Amino acid sequence: MSEHAPSVPADDSVGIVSPQKFHFDTPLPLACGRQLNHWDLMVETYGELNADASNAVLICHALSGNHHAAGYHAPDDRKPGWWDSYIGPGKPVDTNRFFVVALNNLGGCHGSTGPTSIDPDTGRVWGPDFPVMTVEDWVDSQAVLADRLGIQRWAAVVGGSLGGMQVLEWSTRYPERLLHAVVIASTPKLSAQNIAFNEVARQAIMSDPEFHNGHYLEQETIPRHGLRLARMVGHITYLSEHSMGQKFGRDLRADKLNYSFGVEFQVESYLRHQGDTFSERFDANTYLLMTKALDYFDPAGAYGGDLVKALEVAQCRFSVFSFTTDWRFAPARSEELVNALVAAGKRVSYACIDSPHGHDAFLIPNERYQAVFTATMDLIWQQQAGAASCAQI
Amino acid sequence: MSEHAPSVPADDSVGIVSPQKFHFDTPLPLACGRQLNHWDLMVETYGELNADASNAVLICHALSGNHHAAGYHAPDDRKPGWWDSYIGPGKPVDTNRFFVVALNNLGGCHGSTGPTSIDPDTGRVWGPDFPVMTVEDWVDSQAVLADRLGIQRWAAVVGGSLGGMQVLEWSTRYPERLLHAVVIASTPKLSAQNIAFNEVARQAIMSDPEFHNGHYLEQETIPRHGLRLARMVGHITYLSEHSMGQKFGRDLRADKLNYSFGVEFQVESYLRHQGDTFSERFDANTYLLMTKALDYFDPAGAYGGDLVKALEVAQCRFSVFSFTTDWRFAPARSEELVNALVAAGKRVSYACIDSPHGHDAFLIPNERYQAVFTATMDLIWQQQAGAASCAQI
Repeated sequence: MSEHAPSVPADDSVGIVSPQKFHFDTPLPLACGRQLNHWDLMVETYGELNADASNAVLICHALSGNHHAAGYHAPDDRKPGWWDSYIGPGKPVDTNRFFVVALNNLGGCHGSTGPTSIDPDTGRVWGPDFPVMTVEDWVDSQAVLADRLGIQRWAAVVGGSLGGMQVLEWSTRYPERLLHAVVIASTPKLSAQNIAFNEVARQAIMSDPEFHNGHYLEQETIPRHGLRLARMVGHITYLSEHSMGQKFGRDLRADKLNYSFGVEFQVESYLRHQGDTFSERFDANTYLLMTKALDYFDPAGAYGGDLVKALEVAQCRFSVFSFTTDWRFAPARSEELVNALVAAGKRVSYACIDSPHGHDAFLIPNERYQAVFTATMDLIWQQQAGAASCAQI
Repeated sequence: MSEHAPSVPADDSVGIVSPQKFHFDTPLPLACGRQLNHWDLMVETYGELNADASNAVLICHALSGNHHAAGYHAPDDRKPGWWDSYIGPGKPVDTNRFFVVALNNLGGCHGSTGPTSIDPDTGRVWGPDFPVMTVEDWVDSQAVLADRLGIQRWAAVVGGSLGGMQVLEWSTRYPERLLHAVVIASTPKLSAQNIAFNEVARQAIMSDPEFHNGHYLEQETIPRHGLRLARMVGHITYLSEHSMGQKFGRDLRADKLNYSFGVEFQVESYLRHQGDTFSERFDANTYLLMTKALDYFDPAGAYGGDLVKALEVAQCRFSVFSFTTDWRFAPARSEELVNALVAAGKRVSYACIDSPHGHDAFLIPNERYQAVFTATMDLIWQQQAGAASCAQI
């Protein structure tokens, strides 16, 4: 991801941004049968909503993402938001044109109501008693947020990975409330292997003695080792074998083998660092919940596995992108979706983008990706202008 | 793997077998700079060594394997040895012809000297103070075993995965002591991704509080959770995405989601079971040591990365097999080896075998594999007969 001195923000940066917390007292019924009566969403917006509220774009985040998608919170921030490469003035999601809305999903650990929040009914931290969330629940909460912001219809809903699942769910759950769905590096459902990797991550967390059945905060501890392992496993699946090889090969940290179980190869050092950093900044119950949402997502499930049927209700146009070396959600997974959309008679464009960066490619600057993403958002810009002028007639 | 009532052994089974422990007082210098002065190897043999000791085949085991490669230890054994599908009367490694030697490698936990053995110098369990072993060390110990058995030259050295690495090492370390090297589902060195998966497994074990820096036996405990996680991660890499999908898909254990973090999908149940079973039967220090031996193996390393140069000294013929859906050591990794062997002017045959079973394919009955393995062993039979008659002239 690009890094620059934010004290002199680049011309294409949204600059310093401030998150806002939105409070809702609208009961939100959840797929699990429970409901949230009082809940908060932490939100960032970039750009200006136009008079007819037709230029709004919703950004949906992936497993470890949040509302901070672009810009900086403070002049001395070391890194910008997680999708800063693609959101900003003149960038593919052009904030000179679009009003961009990014939020932390419910169940998250960055300000929206989640396992680290206080349950108003008990006065105690939710912890493991926070309801299991699904992609459907998130989309419902995002629709309530859209109401609050005065957005009847999104010009586009955009997201990568787990974010792409939310986009897909929007297209069938609220078919009249978006013009365009941009589904990036995603899949219409997890494979057994995907679920298996998630299960290893969950077991790593849950078998950490510091997990305390999810009540670690009350014990004033965190399951650091478990989270660290979960992130290490995850990280292997985010990178391609090729990019890992290019980045580290079999390079040693010292100049020779030390015949011990300490860090010897560069790739070990990298993984440990990734794991350590993550375990300091992410909540374990949130991690469990996010992986379960991934596992559960299966829009075709309610239609006996028939994805074409599940998609029939959609009204928006679709753009689907995949990346050649992504083995977490390989191009074939996007192509399943594209084929089903075609079979359902939907308007869809598809690009399989050449990149060495595996699943992480959806976050990383890449000329081809930028070109196809820009062209897509240009189309969406025209589409919303056309729709808005039709509405005026 | 085939299972039958061993009380009535099948005609193609070696039947009931007994392991033998061989004790050595020959000092064994190790790659790490230390040496073992007194050591045991647990060994099984099948078939009869012929008069000129020309019909011996060495079987090298993989990460979690041992000396029990074929047959049963007792009439009520539920499962035969790990390679029973391919070793026995009339099977590819035909015990009517060959004298087959299988051993538990040093550092193992099934009878050979390893971390669970008593260090004769201290009178205490070796534990984490057992030396880090390398493929080279194993091959050296196997050569000492061959001396003891009166085998000057193996008709073949055969192994899959980590076993294949030992075969390759034999070909260059003792070039005159084998006629044929059979390298199955292996690689001339690990990739960064392979090392990364091993590192996650090691971290899972070492960060388990029951690990006690490797001194868990003295604490009368075992790092069960860590071993379990290590095995779960490993298991994902042994199966192909396809075979996991075929075996489990997204099938639920119950008839609907229960919105909890318990077992819901069949694949979760399977992985937990695999992990639990393994954590009961395998030693954690041995697991660490085996993964390190994998990471370290790099015969080209001493030749500036030039594998062709590393292989020049080899005199044997080579047969290399890979499996189409193996993503742990993909066919491309075998092909690197085959290309280097060709470039080094060696006699090599190569088969990439169609199988849906991923890396595990090398253990599983498969008609094509059986055909090519049988043809290879037939060739080796003729080769050793020819070599033996030449030697007599």
